Amino acid sequence: MSRYLLPSLASLAPYVPGEQPQDRRYIKLNTNESPFPPSPKAQAKAAEALKRLQLYPDPDGMSLVSAMAERLGLSPDQVLLCNGSDEILDQAFMAFCDGTHPAVFPDISYGFYKVFAEFHGVPYREIPLRADFSICPEDYFGAEGMIVIANPNAPTGLALKSSEIEEILMHNPKRVVVIDEAYIDFGGASAVPLIVQYDNLLVTQTFSKSRSMAGARLGMGFACKALIDDLKKVKYSTNPYNVNAMTLAAGLGAWEDEAYTRANVKAIRENREETEKALRDLGFETTDSRTNFLFARHPGIGGEALYQALKAKGVLVRHFSAPRINDSIRVTVGSKEEMEAFVRAVREVLEAQ
Amino acid sequence: MSRYLLPSLASLAPYVPGEQPQDRRYIKLNTNESPFPPSPKAQAKAAEALKRLQLYPDPDGMSLVSAMAERLGLSPDQVLLCNGSDEILDQAFMAFCDGTHPAVFPDISYGFYKVFAEFHGVPYREIPLRADFSICPEDYFGAEGMIVIANPNAPTGLALKSSEIEEILMHNPKRVVVIDEAYIDFGGASAVPLIVQYDNLLVTQTFSKSRSMAGARLGMGFACKALIDDLKKVKYSTNPYNVNAMTLAAGLGAWEDEAYTRANVKAIRENREETEKALRDLGFETTDSRTNFLFARHPGIGGEALYQALKAKGVLVRHFSAPRINDSIRVTVGSKEEMEAFVRAVREVLEAQ
Repeated sequence: MSRYLLPSLASLAPYVPGEQPQDRRYIKLNTNESPFPPSPKAQAKAAEALKRLQLYPDPDGMSLVSAMAERLGLSPDQVLLCNGSDEILDQAFMAFCDGTHPAVFPDISYGFYKVFAEFHGVPYREIPLRADFSICPEDYFGAEGMIVIANPNAPTGLALKSSEIEEILMHNPKRVVVIDEAYIDFGGASAVPLIVQYDNLLVTQTFSKSRSMAGARLGMGFACKALIDDLKKVKYSTNPYNVNAMTLAAGLGAWEDEAYTRANVKAIRENREETEKALRDLGFETTDSRTNFLFARHPGIGGEALYQALKAKGVLVRHFSAPRINDSIRVTVGSKEEMEAFVRAVREVLEAQ
Repeated sequence: MSRYLLPSLASLAPYVPGEQPQDRRYIKLNTNESPFPPSPKAQAKAAEALKRLQLYPDPDGMSLVSAMAERLGLSPDQVLLCNGSDEILDQAFMAFCDGTHPAVFPDISYGFYKVFAEFHGVPYREIPLRADFSICPEDYFGAEGMIVIANPNAPTGLALKSSEIEEILMHNPKRVVVIDEAYIDFGGASAVPLIVQYDNLLVTQTFSKSRSMAGARLGMGFACKALIDDLKKVKYSTNPYNVNAMTLAAGLGAWEDEAYTRANVKAIRENREETEKALRDLGFETTDSRTNFLFARHPGIGGEALYQALKAKGVLVRHFSAPRINDSIRVTVGSKEEMEAFVRAVREVLEAQ
């Protein structure tokens, strides 16, 4: 920290991304990446785009925006691209929250919501999940600020129904409701169709998970034109050329290759179910995950101990030290081979107890 | 604008990027892009990286950071990568300025400084350039806030000497001094060597101009470790994975292919000199540009009229409507053929007057 840093930022605790170790090869099940490479069509389009990098990208990414709008039955001015969905969440905090415009979100959810709030000086309230880790929609009725809900939620993996999202929207006409659908393709029901009815709804999604493009940094937001215009104001006041030309091209290729995405999602769901069954057979409790990860705890070993023991065996999973979830691990669903290796490693750890 | 947008943002005027017309082919000399494709080494590395996009990028980009640090005689913790240098400038405003920590910059400079300040609610003072468009270093001694100076300046093209930058640094021990070196490779003297002496200096650079990578979105900042740590705090509180894997790879290829960059810079400087001479022969006044653009005015035609007339002929240049410079145009220095076509078009416009 320098002596020039704003005093208001001095005590901040920034977000800590999952480990990206460079020292040894792990079976890497800690950051919810896809085990599959990006679509060949995405690769081919990026390979073309990289030859013309001397030119700025289209700041609006209209080719991709139009393709998305067409498939989703939206108009292009209801779609905004971003440099990963973290960026559009940050933009939402900047557009709709400040020291007198608070935010609310679940106490157990994506850890970045709290970081955004603290960084931007936004008062926030964390609403506890139920004991079974589910979100109680009524808790969000008449909220005192912008609502941010991950659906399905992370790291719990649990999803709300569309009707529950709609109830939250109906009961908050004065508040923006952000539904973070990073994991929606693995089993949840998207809130995108609700955009035409609710002018307070912002849905965010990403190419990082189901479309195997975490390395490309591409996310998107869907909302009524007025909300998208607000976010564009933030974008054009901070970093207009936020999505690079290779990523725009790859994104279009991936979007057009929906069959590839569906096939990968199907494989991951199958691997998820098999792994979940194996974990339950080993005595784990698991949540009903609708994502590309499993959230599991074992009565015989703590989350931290299990994480460390697996890491020693070359399998990287994620452990969170927050109360209520520190006895669990979050395990990305990878390939069939990776999940078999993971289950083998877990069995060895339990047997050595 | 929605009814949810923060009142403080309602009247903002965001940055307006140069036109990126999709409707017809122009000789595009309006956004200071390079006429040359990216280095073959940059292309090859990006082509490899796009096959593994399913994995998140290294958020610190250590391979590229280390390569930069080594060549510049810095330590890796004195280097920070960003999603275009706009982003690191935005981060600097967030780290060092707020409602009670102002900023100062020249009245005629990169238009985004004012946008950053207004967006973040930062009071700012614009210090007038001298009548000849040069910056008077003494005007910045004992400044009341963070200083931001583009060197060479845009759209004037004029550069300060290293000794003048150093005087500004010496006279502002309590202020961060940001030197925006987007155009430094075309003729200015970089302030990077001053980093070891001045803990208040942040130098920003970009791969968009001399390295033909505007489409990839890659910039970087150089400063003492403490200032870089401050900016990392902002990065890790807003968008940690801000630079994608293809761009990191391309950046390393471009950085390693310094001979390619130098050859392109040499060609652009030669084209700049020839074009400048041709413009002077046609009666233009030009500044002593140390950049990849020319800033020129003609006593016989206004800037707006010239811009429009050239656009009608298929040549796109940039015109700014701000006072003092609205009689001028800014012309990117492109290839020899492009500049010959530009001069031909200018001659025709003048003859038709």
